[in-house]
Amino acid sequence: MLNPMPAPLQFHFDFISPYGYFASRRIEAIAARHGRTVEWHVMLLGVSVLKVMGLKPLLDTPLKGDYLRRDIPRHARRLGLVLGRDLRGPVSNPLPMARAFQWIRQHQPALQGAAAHAIYEAYWAEGRDLSEPASLAALTWPEGLDGAAIATAAASEEAAALLRAAVSSSIAQGVFGSPTVIVDGEPFWGFDRLGDVEAWLAEGGW
Amino acid sequence: MLNPMPAPLQFHFDFISPYGYFASRRIEAIAARHGRTVEWHVMLLGVSVLKVMGLKPLLDTPLKGDYLRRDIPRHARRLGLVLGRDLRGPVSNPLPMARAFQWIRQHQPALQGAAAHAIYEAYWAEGRDLSEPASLAALTWPEGLDGAAIATAAASEEAAALLRAAVSSSIAQGVFGSPTVIVDGEPFWGFDRLGDVEAWLAEGGW
Repeated sequence: MLNPMPAPLQFHFDFISPYGYFASRRIEAIAARHGRTVEWHVMLLGVSVLKVMGLKPLLDTPLKGDYLRRDIPRHARRLGLVLGRDLRGPVSNPLPMARAFQWIRQHQPALQGAAAHAIYEAYWAEGRDLSEPASLAALTWPEGLDGAAIATAAASEEAAALLRAAVSSSIAQGVFGSPTVIVDGEPFWGFDRLGDVEAWLAEGGW
Repeated sequence: MLNPMPAPLQFHFDFISPYGYFASRRIEAIAARHGRTVEWHVMLLGVSVLKVMGLKPLLDTPLKGDYLRRDIPRHARRLGLVLGRDLRGPVSNPLPMARAFQWIRQHQPALQGAAAHAIYEAYWAEGRDLSEPASLAALTWPEGLDGAAIATAAASEEAAALLRAAVSSSIAQGVFGSPTVIVDGEPFWGFDRLGDVEAWLAEGGW
């Protein structure tokens, strides 16, 4: 009998989440060290946190907002990243990027990771406003992806339906925060749990 | 000139917080490895989370509650701890324990850490209901502390006033979650940030 291929790590993320961005830069190396691949699952904090959990946006929460505005740049410094976004500035409408991503994932699944990196870099490193589908045309897409086609797709009903299905599935699995990594059914929420993900992979649970 | 004594680590915690309990068992060793001591600061999630932040209790939050009921026992297993509390059962009124702690801290500051451990063990390992001041009399207190006197003090206006001052001071410093460790003015929220606390102590920031 052949050894079964181990299941991919499920990486759940929202593009407007800075901790999702930080984790997106590490998750493939973590997976590779343990013979795994990564499945990229876009989610929407606006649905899980605001609608299902009944909370408010993290950066608008008293006390926690101030803490996060300190913690996010501190993490970026440690990771050697320059954030091009002002954490007190407007947040882009997350729907066009998430719809574009889900459309790419559907039609060119092999490029899902590269597409996620392209969107994350444009949003967090370059600080672009990606609120409009048209704004997606000008991103630095990886070879094999066409900006103009993606911008058109991001405004399509097909992409909207694909995203609705993805978000429902993520909520149905209990995912509420970004990033969340699911390892063989075991969920780990938070950038600060990537060490636990590695330990779980190495030890096979505990 | 003498070298100045480095400032203690400020350890902010709520007794009803399981992550505070986990961290309470590690914080003194972390401090000691870096030539520091620990200052124990009791806080009330009922004030920071519910009143100031306007959120709901974590375990009652949809999706997150289910996640935490999985994550807390998982951490306990990893740490080799047996939790005597049912995470679906009632939470004790945190005021008597917090008032008792603050009264001990005021009158016998050298025993603050030992007192915190005694309360945490009774609540999380033994699973006792500590809702009434009288329930505190029967705890396994460290030498030098008298259970009957503590139970009486926990019902006093003096202890209530001491706790109010402590909680106000904690909120004024921006503390909202348990545990929070403040290292030379730099706050770290969450049990999963103890590694960052150690790194910050070792590297002197980043």
